[in-house]
Amino acid sequence: MPPRRPTIGVFDSGFGGLTVLRELAALVPDADYIYFGDTARLPYGSKSVETVARYATGAAHYLERHGAGMLVIACNTATALALDRITEAASVPVIGVVEPGAERAAAASQNRKVVVIGTEATVASHAYLRALQARGMDAKEKACPLLVPLVEEGWVEHPVTEVVAQIYLNEAFAGGFEHADVLVLGCTHYPLLKPLLHRIAPAHVTIVDSAESTAQVVSEQLRRSPLPILTDEERRHTPRFKFFATDSVEKFRRLGARFLGHPVEDVQHVDLKE
Amino acid sequence: MPPRRPTIGVFDSGFGGLTVLRELAALVPDADYIYFGDTARLPYGSKSVETVARYATGAAHYLERHGAGMLVIACNTATALALDRITEAASVPVIGVVEPGAERAAAASQNRKVVVIGTEATVASHAYLRALQARGMDAKEKACPLLVPLVEEGWVEHPVTEVVAQIYLNEAFAGGFEHADVLVLGCTHYPLLKPLLHRIAPAHVTIVDSAESTAQVVSEQLRRSPLPILTDEERRHTPRFKFFATDSVEKFRRLGARFLGHPVEDVQHVDLKE
Repeated sequence: MPPRRPTIGVFDSGFGGLTVLRELAALVPDADYIYFGDTARLPYGSKSVETVARYATGAAHYLERHGAGMLVIACNTATALALDRITEAASVPVIGVVEPGAERAAAASQNRKVVVIGTEATVASHAYLRALQARGMDAKEKACPLLVPLVEEGWVEHPVTEVVAQIYLNEAFAGGFEHADVLVLGCTHYPLLKPLLHRIAPAHVTIVDSAESTAQVVSEQLRRSPLPILTDEERRHTPRFKFFATDSVEKFRRLGARFLGHPVEDVQHVDLKE
Repeated sequence: MPPRRPTIGVFDSGFGGLTVLRELAALVPDADYIYFGDTARLPYGSKSVETVARYATGAAHYLERHGAGMLVIACNTATALALDRITEAASVPVIGVVEPGAERAAAASQNRKVVVIGTEATVASHAYLRALQARGMDAKEKACPLLVPLVEEGWVEHPVTEVVAQIYLNEAFAGGFEHADVLVLGCTHYPLLKPLLHRIAPAHVTIVDSAESTAQVVSEQLRRSPLPILTDEERRHTPRFKFFATDSVEKFRRLGARFLGHPVEDVQHVDLKE
């Protein structure tokens, strides 16, 4: 076997997963990354289980064929609706964003009361509820369908976004959850709203970002694997990135940079032929 | 040839086209309707020309195979990006929403200054700009990406929607268009916001709803066609509806009723197999 530097495949319906990639690259710089953004068929948040599962397993196969030795499902909806199906279909380890977020939330909560915000589909799946209840937590989930379009409009610090987020949080921190002490960001778009959410969430609340938590789990999993013997070239501490998008490459570059925090360069269009 | 009652195929990426169907059924009740909502792949508003053209011609073929003798592209994005391609691919007459809206706007404007609001893709295509300039109008287009999610959240009379719409209209009615006297609703979701937009648009502005204008054009076109000899049963004045949706049927029924204004019953799932 030739020595190998790990290649991690990251999948999302669009741009949001780039917040996970950003955390991964910071925490695991001695890996290379290939990212699949299914931008022609986004958003997954309003789609049915069957549709999401079919799209996500297709993307997982694509990343494997392009050399991914591990898959990160950087999409809360795809993880919530289809992680089992993806894991079954893949021949490499698969990590979703729900379990790491739930684990971190359980560790951070003092009073075992946790609020989770996400898309309609993620909330309807109750994946976070189950993962948190399995850890002895009491959880309330709240769908916030306007936050993704507000982030994509670039209104991450806009007064309208503040009002909308406040309405959602008021509804979430209610009905016995007034004193919940953890807020889980159950959507990969939401890390861009972290400064705003920090300001408006009740003061005693810890915000758990599932992008960060997932990167930590990937890092630990790689540390547990037997260390491959790397050449000098392979041991470099700057990751290489390659992006695949099912819709406009130009748009992926432009919007993607906002989520990744640096320029998005090597983007290739994938034709879905449907 | 057996006598035939007309069957009109109506296509949209999702639910918005139901506002066009609603106007059609009111204006042309002696026809039957089949509606194709490509809900598994919505929204089209953020997708590229190639992707939209491929999806829309597929849907047009589907409606023809199911008996449509005329096609209404009740989606501004699909009309703006792909009407030529759809017309070329179809063997029945095809009517889009852009030309009827532009025609009505030109007739309503006194000072030849028109503002058009729509999705990002519709605006980027400049289809309305071209159609209005061809009629001697001066037009300004403004993308309003948050209005569709606000309508889908059901916030059609919400203070947040009023603030967002006011921000968009302030940007639109500016730069030489302060006195524009027509506002074209270039997205089939927007008719649900008509009461709100009437309140906040400058008082002298006429609102042109492309759903209404399109239904008028279809009605005129049918009147010009040679009248078929109809049986009594075929002459009934209550249209029959059949719906095809590429995503969840249950969700189509639930959300669809809001746009159509009455219950959505006969919905069949279409499996895209991609």
